[in-house]
Amino acid sequence: MKNKSLSSLRINDERFRANFETLAAIGATPDGGVHRPALSEAHLEARRWFLEHAKQIGLDARMDGAGNHSAVLLCGRAGGPTLLLGSHLDSVPYGGRFDGALGVVAALEVLQVVKEQGISLNTHLEAIDFTDEEGHFANFVGSLGLAGRLEPEHIQHPRGGRDRFRQALCQAGLSESSLFSAGRDPATLAGYLELHIEQGIRLIESGIQIGVVTNIVGIRSFKIKFIGRADHAGTTPMDKRLDAAQGASAFTLASRELVMNEFPGYVATVGNMEFEPGVFNVVPHTVTVALEFRADDDHKLDEMEAALRQQVSVAAQQFGLESETEHLDNTPPAHMNDQVREAFVNVSKALGLKHTFLPSGAGHDAQCMAEICPTGMIFVPSVGGFSHSAKEFTEWEDCANGANALLQAALMLAR
Amino acid sequence: MKNKSLSSLRINDERFRANFETLAAIGATPDGGVHRPALSEAHLEARRWFLEHAKQIGLDARMDGAGNHSAVLLCGRAGGPTLLLGSHLDSVPYGGRFDGALGVVAALEVLQVVKEQGISLNTHLEAIDFTDEEGHFANFVGSLGLAGRLEPEHIQHPRGGRDRFRQALCQAGLSESSLFSAGRDPATLAGYLELHIEQGIRLIESGIQIGVVTNIVGIRSFKIKFIGRADHAGTTPMDKRLDAAQGASAFTLASRELVMNEFPGYVATVGNMEFEPGVFNVVPHTVTVALEFRADDDHKLDEMEAALRQQVSVAAQQFGLESETEHLDNTPPAHMNDQVREAFVNVSKALGLKHTFLPSGAGHDAQCMAEICPTGMIFVPSVGGFSHSAKEFTEWEDCANGANALLQAALMLAR
Repeated sequence: MKNKSLSSLRINDERFRANFETLAAIGATPDGGVHRPALSEAHLEARRWFLEHAKQIGLDARMDGAGNHSAVLLCGRAGGPTLLLGSHLDSVPYGGRFDGALGVVAALEVLQVVKEQGISLNTHLEAIDFTDEEGHFANFVGSLGLAGRLEPEHIQHPRGGRDRFRQALCQAGLSESSLFSAGRDPATLAGYLELHIEQGIRLIESGIQIGVVTNIVGIRSFKIKFIGRADHAGTTPMDKRLDAAQGASAFTLASRELVMNEFPGYVATVGNMEFEPGVFNVVPHTVTVALEFRADDDHKLDEMEAALRQQVSVAAQQFGLESETEHLDNTPPAHMNDQVREAFVNVSKALGLKHTFLPSGAGHDAQCMAEICPTGMIFVPSVGGFSHSAKEFTEWEDCANGANALLQAALMLAR
Repeated sequence: MKNKSLSSLRINDERFRANFETLAAIGATPDGGVHRPALSEAHLEARRWFLEHAKQIGLDARMDGAGNHSAVLLCGRAGGPTLLLGSHLDSVPYGGRFDGALGVVAALEVLQVVKEQGISLNTHLEAIDFTDEEGHFANFVGSLGLAGRLEPEHIQHPRGGRDRFRQALCQAGLSESSLFSAGRDPATLAGYLELHIEQGIRLIESGIQIGVVTNIVGIRSFKIKFIGRADHAGTTPMDKRLDAAQGASAFTLASRELVMNEFPGYVATVGNMEFEPGVFNVVPHTVTVALEFRADDDHKLDEMEAALRQQVSVAAQQFGLESETEHLDNTPPAHMNDQVREAFVNVSKALGLKHTFLPSGAGHDAQCMAEICPTGMIFVPSVGGFSHSAKEFTEWEDCANGANALLQAALMLAR
């Protein structure tokens, strides 16, 4: 097949949709979402479907030590590198049917089209479903494992506890030590492409079909303790209190003002507060604030961190409190590869689809893959911008547009 | 014994202190406090000590259906009313040795002195230990029961759960229904006097030995929900959020400002916040704020409630949130009887003790008793004003002064 005819190739829309619906039925919730936390029974069933479907369409199906599921099409030159296409089949608890699943089903569809046409390329193609993107136990276990960037500390305190994690791994045919065996030699990888729904409203509001991701924001998270003194809520005059609630509240308001005024376009969130002792009739001696903030470059993250730390001091001082700041997590921003971005732009134009550039405010497996190979992502519009919710919805035409852009970009990069 | 000689009567300081120490050893914690939550093993042991001690000194010991323990001295005219003196032997978890216990031991000492002297009075005397003053299961169960003011709703949702409450009652020889059998005919009661440590620093800082309580503040408590929308903390711009944390924080700061500026001398406390979903990476859709405020008259409580409700609306509106306010508790202020107050003032003067008037910011059994009989309270100084803490400490001289004031006031009122 020639380049000319390759550029006219399209995914099989009906088949693509049927596969998507089949998958969406696994772990389906009554409100139209899915409940497929990583390594849950529904998630494992979705992964069995992946392997069976891959075999049915003649692909080589396999699982690595980190649980990543792959369907491989050996369509490149012998010993040549592999271009990965994928996303993840796990969901947040009671999440939506599009997040992750769309990218995996689209990747399988791309491979099926290429296989049907008997196309020979410079690289092999591999559809991949990464393990625990959503961090039910620990974020990005699969993509970190494949990228050789999984650190023992990352899985030392899994959410839900280590025993539950070990048990879940065991049921999936994995173990803590096997997770570290999944690293791939970057020289064998031609790149990684991911299709995902936008988790926001920029595309849907501007009527643009393809969002070419420029970078994935970095995230820093902190636990900030404001520490005062427990006092009787009836007998302690207002002006004699060291009330941790006041410091935590002042910081929460100030952090929003700060980011809106001095870091426009960026975000900071107080997602939780824990009061001690946390009862009606005692002035709280300690309030622990959960803070995270995001920006698309490290320099900006440093600036935000310094400014937010300053606000912690100001708020604590205002009410005579002590403060302690514990650094929890630091995910650096990931830059999407220029050549891959260009490929997505060109195929969008060729497909007659409007495109724009935008950063991803959410984390994705692509940020781990970007560390070891040319990586790119595209977003398709999400009605209402709902995310991690059963309300998530993308018009099927937009899903198909995204899959065709993925197909064409893969062909362009694998050629 | 004549009036002249009655006024020279004093408690037996050494014996009083020995009894106090014996009691403080029951449920003692290593840091000098006591852990005697209502109906716990240590609390029941303290109550057994009360009954045994009462019998040893020749008093009539009994327990009513609400678990209140009494030691009765029939020193009045036949068929005459009874003057109650007392407090409570339960403590908050890991509390102090003075709160409650001082008043009970002092009451027993007063009765022992009167009995030893063979004094005949107009009224009988009764030392009483009320059940669950601290609300380990439900506040003031004993004094509400005795006052005939216990409502079924009050014990429907005990802290720790109904099963645990029933089990604890059963182990103490009580039942839910027995609690309602403790009501006493007000005509049989001459009054109620309570000695307690101050839970604040006014007396200790001003070098005054006796605080004559004017009234016990009323308490209103509310759960206030600020309701916004859960959003992805990475992909939702700051100005598109309906962030419940912002409303809750704005209210917390505003409630303090409001009370300090417009209700000086009164108190309002945000003792807890609960975030939903309460995780780092989701903008909280709901924050539930635990608010209580106190004032010494109902009119002032009404004014505070109106002003605080207004602040809820303002804070919610500022951030595009809804709000829901659930009224939890409404304890009316209790006024201490004028004649009893006068008696405390007169005996303080006669004993050469400096006195002052002050309201009680904390709740006491006296507020329930004030509903049915002439009731009064005195406070003695507390070093540092610590309350509900093992750090609670009152110089023994101050304890003895309080007990002598209690003795003399009882003699004056029972004459």
